[in-house]
Amino acid sequence: MFRKLMTFDEAKQTINQQLKPEPLGTEELALLEAHNRVLAEDIVSVLDIPPFNRSTVDGYAVKAEDTFGAEENRPAKLEVCGVVHIGEPPRISVAKGEAAEIVTGAPIPEGADAVVMVEDTDRKNNVLSVYGTVTRGENVMKKGTDIKKGETVLKKGQVLGSREIGVLAALGKATAKVHCVPTVAVLSTGAEVTEPGKKLPSGKIYDINAYSLSTAVLESGGNPVYLGVVPDERAELRKALERALACADMVITSGGVSVGPKDLMPQTVDALGKPGLIVCGVALKPGKPTTVALIGKKPVFALPGHPTSALLVFHLFVRPVIQLWAGKPAEEAAAVKAVAGARMFSAKGRKTFVMVKLKRAKSNRLIAEPVETGASGAITTLAKADGFVEIPENQQFIDANEEVAVTLLKDAV
Amino acid sequence: MFRKLMTFDEAKQTINQQLKPEPLGTEELALLEAHNRVLAEDIVSVLDIPPFNRSTVDGYAVKAEDTFGAEENRPAKLEVCGVVHIGEPPRISVAKGEAAEIVTGAPIPEGADAVVMVEDTDRKNNVLSVYGTVTRGENVMKKGTDIKKGETVLKKGQVLGSREIGVLAALGKATAKVHCVPTVAVLSTGAEVTEPGKKLPSGKIYDINAYSLSTAVLESGGNPVYLGVVPDERAELRKALERALACADMVITSGGVSVGPKDLMPQTVDALGKPGLIVCGVALKPGKPTTVALIGKKPVFALPGHPTSALLVFHLFVRPVIQLWAGKPAEEAAAVKAVAGARMFSAKGRKTFVMVKLKRAKSNRLIAEPVETGASGAITTLAKADGFVEIPENQQFIDANEEVAVTLLKDAV
Repeated sequence: MFRKLMTFDEAKQTINQQLKPEPLGTEELALLEAHNRVLAEDIVSVLDIPPFNRSTVDGYAVKAEDTFGAEENRPAKLEVCGVVHIGEPPRISVAKGEAAEIVTGAPIPEGADAVVMVEDTDRKNNVLSVYGTVTRGENVMKKGTDIKKGETVLKKGQVLGSREIGVLAALGKATAKVHCVPTVAVLSTGAEVTEPGKKLPSGKIYDINAYSLSTAVLESGGNPVYLGVVPDERAELRKALERALACADMVITSGGVSVGPKDLMPQTVDALGKPGLIVCGVALKPGKPTTVALIGKKPVFALPGHPTSALLVFHLFVRPVIQLWAGKPAEEAAAVKAVAGARMFSAKGRKTFVMVKLKRAKSNRLIAEPVETGASGAITTLAKADGFVEIPENQQFIDANEEVAVTLLKDAV
Repeated sequence: MFRKLMTFDEAKQTINQQLKPEPLGTEELALLEAHNRVLAEDIVSVLDIPPFNRSTVDGYAVKAEDTFGAEENRPAKLEVCGVVHIGEPPRISVAKGEAAEIVTGAPIPEGADAVVMVEDTDRKNNVLSVYGTVTRGENVMKKGTDIKKGETVLKKGQVLGSREIGVLAALGKATAKVHCVPTVAVLSTGAEVTEPGKKLPSGKIYDINAYSLSTAVLESGGNPVYLGVVPDERAELRKALERALACADMVITSGGVSVGPKDLMPQTVDALGKPGLIVCGVALKPGKPTTVALIGKKPVFALPGHPTSALLVFHLFVRPVIQLWAGKPAEEAAAVKAVAGARMFSAKGRKTFVMVKLKRAKSNRLIAEPVETGASGAITTLAKADGFVEIPENQQFIDANEEVAVTLLKDAV
């Protein structure tokens, strides 16, 4: 086992190189269940849409030329030869001098090439007076004008929202081939941590991370398996980790990664299998104790115990893997430009992330006010920060009034 | 039964006045199931967080004054009086001249008021050399500094994301009281409409709306009940609507609301119960045939059959009701400013919505290009439009190069 602090970029690169760099797999889902999932194939239409020439109005299907010259006071006279029923192939055809009754959406019968709106006609028995002219194709939606057979209408990697689901339905698809959702086991460790809902013994605090990380997994497109709090004891921890690896594609733990005497996590994780630890501490603030192992093909991300640090490190290292495995195209987290509300210091030699709250100044400028992230404010930071500002390793501080890019937490984690 | 075309504002007002204007109800859910739901009560902390003074480092709990004057070459000498275990109430106290071994997160023992970091000490058996000074409170996170007992930490109406779920966990809550999700039955009508997955008979098209609207319900915070395609026949339609009303808080239909001979929807809906129809056509384009009925306390929204019209009218009239019933605070749909790429005409006397695609011009200006929405382009419009531009009833057109506000479809429907 080694214990070398990597730079942020080294850690990123190591994870990218050693983890499976492609979506986990695909499955065929009923259309409504495929909502919000990622399409795993290009969709090429196997039919023309509409599949036939359709009327776009209620009226009469005619030969356009039969209406040429018709006016308000000099109507064209046509003979009604029948009715075209909606939802059925037309059983009649329209000859010169004839008109067929038709409703919106019904197929244009053989021989007709336009539809006269019912408002522009007057009918006495089978004699139709047409008080205006239609051109060829008027009020007709031609076969294939919406989608042509062979056209690619949706692309692999698109997230299926209501409109994309609508397009798939239009093509007659009752199912969609989508990427599988990575299953992510989430557990917390620490002798001081108690599960919410239980009585709080003296000296303990309630667990936050298994809950905030499980829901962050959901928000990243993964399927969390909540495993709760595991005692800070080697055999128990090993058992829990083995169970987690057996039931999930990835494991996230939090707590137990510092240098304190109780921090068994790195050793225990490393002993689970090969290749074992691949990242053992990162030159980051917060998040220095971040530890990553690979057991077979399954990664274990051991995040710090501090709730804000855990969620930030999740965002930096874990979320991109979940998104990649879920087939989601790489996305830039939403960011806004703001002005530093106070000087923000970096931790020497570590890439530093400063949590900030955004305020709108009277001048309408957006101000990024640093939020206390250190030892105190563990939970309030989490709830009150709008985003974070990044300070590179080689920069000592960002000065008040400097322009900064704020990565938004709402979208990010 | 009446058939008066209301203005957009009149229709909005009628719906607001006649529908139950408050969230449907509340339920208590397990924390992870409450993700993305709307909180139904203010959350006031019943405990201090942290619940005790905690060490923020690994080291030794001391009386700060015992370290005053200590330096690199003149260490303070203290006697180690024991160990404070994490997750337990301290069994020891620290007297003058003493130090207690402690790890991050463990409770500060009686008598101590600061913690010396382990890096600043050297220990030989029970004799601790302290090579620096700590001030009172240093490396100690005081009881209640994060959250004070009695503090309101979350507000009714907040959507529970990962951070809010984390805050609830911190307070020891294993459940959350959230607003119920409105159940929305969705069905399509039309003799020409076939369910996706079935063979397409000649003269028919596949149903889009039951799918796109069901998923739009999901995206609005409702729970859709997909009822598929109902034949365009009075008795069948009535039976389907009664079944829909029995199983849902609200019914959405599409198709069958124009003036064609097969358009049974308004009559059939009106016959279901009192008060019956409340909106019968709106001076809108697209969406003129939009019909709304109230059967007891349950609304039936009968939307047009054209997929883009149906989804637009859903956005304008239905989505706000679902959101209100789900307890979501009224939200403005996201909009961007752009420049009209072409002249856009309104329909005389009707509030007109023009679907547009956004393009970035070389000048970096955002251009709103109108997308064909009429008879053709039913599905492609849906998939290709980025948003829509609104033209008021009393305006004839928006000219090319005029500035327009584009309501984004991605967020809106």
